[in-house]
Amino acid sequence: MRVAGVPRRSIALAADGWAVEIVDQAALPGSFRIARLESLAAMADAIRAMRLRGAPLIGAAAAYGVALAMRADPSDRALDDAERALLRTRPTAVNLRAAVDDVAMRLRPLTPGERARAAYDRAAALCDADVEINRAIARHGIALIRDRWLRLQRPVNIMTHCNAGWLATVDGGTALAPVYLAHAEGIPLHVWVSETRPRNQGALTAWELGQERVPHTVFVDAAAGYLMQQGRVDLCLVGTDRTTARGDVANKIGTYPKALAARAHGVPFYVAAPSPSIDWTLDDGREIPIEERDGGEIATVSGAAVLNVAFDVTPAELVTGLITERGICPATREGLAQLFPDRIA
Amino acid sequence: MRVAGVPRRSIALAADGWAVEIVDQAALPGSFRIARLESLAAMADAIRAMRLRGAPLIGAAAAYGVALAMRADPSDRALDDAERALLRTRPTAVNLRAAVDDVAMRLRPLTPGERARAAYDRAAALCDADVEINRAIARHGIALIRDRWLRLQRPVNIMTHCNAGWLATVDGGTALAPVYLAHAEGIPLHVWVSETRPRNQGALTAWELGQERVPHTVFVDAAAGYLMQQGRVDLCLVGTDRTTARGDVANKIGTYPKALAARAHGVPFYVAAPSPSIDWTLDDGREIPIEERDGGEIATVSGAAVLNVAFDVTPAELVTGLITERGICPATREGLAQLFPDRIA
Repeated sequence: MRVAGVPRRSIALAADGWAVEIVDQAALPGSFRIARLESLAAMADAIRAMRLRGAPLIGAAAAYGVALAMRADPSDRALDDAERALLRTRPTAVNLRAAVDDVAMRLRPLTPGERARAAYDRAAALCDADVEINRAIARHGIALIRDRWLRLQRPVNIMTHCNAGWLATVDGGTALAPVYLAHAEGIPLHVWVSETRPRNQGALTAWELGQERVPHTVFVDAAAGYLMQQGRVDLCLVGTDRTTARGDVANKIGTYPKALAARAHGVPFYVAAPSPSIDWTLDDGREIPIEERDGGEIATVSGAAVLNVAFDVTPAELVTGLITERGICPATREGLAQLFPDRIA
Repeated sequence: MRVAGVPRRSIALAADGWAVEIVDQAALPGSFRIARLESLAAMADAIRAMRLRGAPLIGAAAAYGVALAMRADPSDRALDDAERALLRTRPTAVNLRAAVDDVAMRLRPLTPGERARAAYDRAAALCDADVEINRAIARHGIALIRDRWLRLQRPVNIMTHCNAGWLATVDGGTALAPVYLAHAEGIPLHVWVSETRPRNQGALTAWELGQERVPHTVFVDAAAGYLMQQGRVDLCLVGTDRTTARGDVANKIGTYPKALAARAHGVPFYVAAPSPSIDWTLDDGREIPIEERDGGEIATVSGAAVLNVAFDVTPAELVTGLITERGICPATREGLAQLFPDRIA
């Protein structure tokens, strides 16, 4: 996407060809800053502290984390250490694990001298693949918005959650990819942006949408039911941190109550699920590890106990469909198998 | 209740017998401060700015607002002005309108010279009635907690929303009244306290529970579905700002999605509904006026549009029962008519 007219990805190599530059999401929406990361430790810290976040993005970032580690020390032991350090950062998004495993598997047979170059190349390839996947999701997902516009003949009201825009990916976004494309094609729409406590990623979404002049309104998470009850939502579009082979969806805490409200009011609930976010080894969403973050993220009475779970699991039966890079399918094993016969039978 | 060992009500006459002292909820939970209000304008501002809040409390406060107005000027015109000024402060809680109408109706036939005294007396009587009502709610509601304790033989997990404790009333609380009584009687329990964006009244609840040493944990509103899905909630107890004659419940925004999640997971959902919160003139909850507050309460990107609705309506069919001062009844017209044959047929 563009920021102040300049094309930007959320993550990219620096001009020197080895350091990694990221859009520092901890500074947004107050200020737009590029942070330079020069080591595995810096990358792991940035992921943990959510200076970069979003399942697709932390997958790509972890791949670059391995590359930075290999540049410093390409030994077997350093590779093992890098893998462990990155897998420890955040447990829920499967993209991170998949990317780390993918890069490590490719590097192990190589000589130490070949590893850094190969890691950088693979990280770059994963970044480019993410961008292509998101373009395909935009092309498939726009049909959902266009259909509603043709039927309703007024701006389509789309509710999203958290930030599944370009900041959450290398570029283009997942749930917001069809929104950006529809807006660019002149389909009138309006986006309901939930605050997304405790980290307020709704402000990132509002910032992104504001940059692209997409009409939007911010509301507190607890008002999602009210908005659907009032008939003010035509379509829900959310992202995912891990979707199982049968279509259970782990995503930012608060996704599940939105899906329940959508079901109660007959609002279609679609999940933008790039295949790197699909965990083909799991069926039951209850087996997805759910990250608990520091209670200090929720300001309350000093000393009060706090539970800060970062994700919840929406069972497949509440999901109208999955928007993947290969098309839209029902949130079922059969639906996914039709689009991904190479991954599941 | 007691604060640092001293018995306190949320609202009371000052020692001089005419000014009104309130617990300043804008200062909590950071600091405990008593604010002195000396005029109708000061009272109306305090209600609007939520320095005092909670449906039962703003009813009592509005009655004192009329008294302060009459002390300054007991004319017919001043009485009309006081009524209008108070009714404009907050539209959803029916208690406020009921209290203002009640006091004004009693004052109109009196001579100006009698009005101030009569207004103070009536305000004091409404305060005492609120305390009695909440004691009765505690006695009825404790059975719900005791039953679960006897069956589960472990601490009962109770989810509440917003603040329906003593701060929201003159004293004793509504939804928290049975919790305090159960705790005092040694029934082991734990309260799930939702943050309650955007005004964070969960912090008031955490502060109250902390004062009484009731075990509790704060969580973000969007995690209510997760907690119920995990089987970590045995019972929901919330308050109400206005309940209709058929049992539809207007309460703090976020109550409705909790009720939906409770239904999905078979968790009983009870509403503490003192009769002054019941609007006998309405059946359909969709007719309840829903307050929209200033968007500035939700921090986001500067200039972004914000929708800040303060309440939602939970349809009666999602409410397991209403806890009134006369007992617990189904959330139906028939249920309420059995307990209040003097109010509805």
